[in-house]
Amino acid sequence: MNEVTRQIPGYNYGEPAVARSPVTLEQLQNLKVSAGFTAEDEHYLHLAGPVLAEQVERIVKHWRANIIAGIPHLARHSRNLDGSPNPDYLARSNRRFEQWILDTCLRPYDQEWLDYQQEIALRHTSIRKNQTDGVRSTAYVPYGDIVAFVAVMNETMKDYLAAKGHGSDEVIRMHRAWCKSLHLQMALWAKAYMDTGEASRDF
Amino acid sequence: MNEVTRQIPGYNYGEPAVARSPVTLEQLQNLKVSAGFTAEDEHYLHLAGPVLAEQVERIVKHWRANIIAGIPHLARHSRNLDGSPNPDYLARSNRRFEQWILDTCLRPYDQEWLDYQQEIALRHTSIRKNQTDGVRSTAYVPYGDIVAFVAVMNETMKDYLAAKGHGSDEVIRMHRAWCKSLHLQMALWAKAYMDTGEASRDF
Repeated sequence: MNEVTRQIPGYNYGEPAVARSPVTLEQLQNLKVSAGFTAEDEHYLHLAGPVLAEQVERIVKHWRANIIAGIPHLARHSRNLDGSPNPDYLARSNRRFEQWILDTCLRPYDQEWLDYQQEIALRHTSIRKNQTDGVRSTAYVPYGDIVAFVAVMNETMKDYLAAKGHGSDEVIRMHRAWCKSLHLQMALWAKAYMDTGEASRDF
Repeated sequence: MNEVTRQIPGYNYGEPAVARSPVTLEQLQNLKVSAGFTAEDEHYLHLAGPVLAEQVERIVKHWRANIIAGIPHLARHSRNLDGSPNPDYLARSNRRFEQWILDTCLRPYDQEWLDYQQEIALRHTSIRKNQTDGVRSTAYVPYGDIVAFVAVMNETMKDYLAAKGHGSDEVIRMHRAWCKSLHLQMALWAKAYMDTGEASRDF
């Protein structure tokens, strides 16, 4: 962990307190095969990392302030239970959201990464939501809303990948790799959610 | 139901035997908002329908024979329990797979559509898999494998949408609408799976 990531509140990638993934590396390999995720995709994610690095604050602000803030059933998950804003909670989770973009591009997809996918998922379920930041907010984010919003993230990501002057073929390949990774992650997050059943309520 | 769809074995869209969705139209509307799915996407799906109509056999053959057949942990779901081929089961489910592409583009997303999403999901869980075709195959398709393979379907769909001479802007918009619909569908399918927990095993 470098000095930058150390300063992100509640971000503890690779630390002992992180959840253990129930998914093995062999099962991850099968998932990669199912999604058509190859070494080429790893290559283009590594290319995408530096492209996105200077933009993550802007990207997350766009998602959170321009889109989610206008959708009450999504915005409530970063607010207090009475619906009032909680700027500190929002700011802390935004920093982690930004780092997640970089982790998606630059981290090796190894056991630590698998474990952090489990941690991310649990922090959206009633098992761990709100605990990291000591807040009282919605008990969980329904899985279906996450899957639906990934459509928005994937779509908007195209422009950010194109923002640093790469050729259209490279942008297409970076975007393809991003989308495939998100499918891997949605599959991994589902596994944590299945144990709570929290796609089942409050769509 | 017209004469074409009536001839698809086990396809019973809109009939009384179809499962009832636990999702309301209001909840579907919220999901659409989360995914950024708008009337423009409906428009471009309606445009995509006729583009894909003549190609559905080729598309499903590509997915099933060129891709899934080479991935044992996916191929087994259309085979007998001992791993031997079951060509009749495969052929029947391929016909429904083809029709699903058209339904995604051309059906109104109303209560009947919601109900059939539930039916589709249940037919991939141990609640209804194998029953429609009276076969003995794997008990269920893990949800994570479906989510992962949607990445492949979304990616390959681009070329089929471009195959009938539409301009690149129209192709991009048709593809965007397709992907958003798949996110809605993954969210709806998850709801059925949450009740069985069958993302949780055998990734």
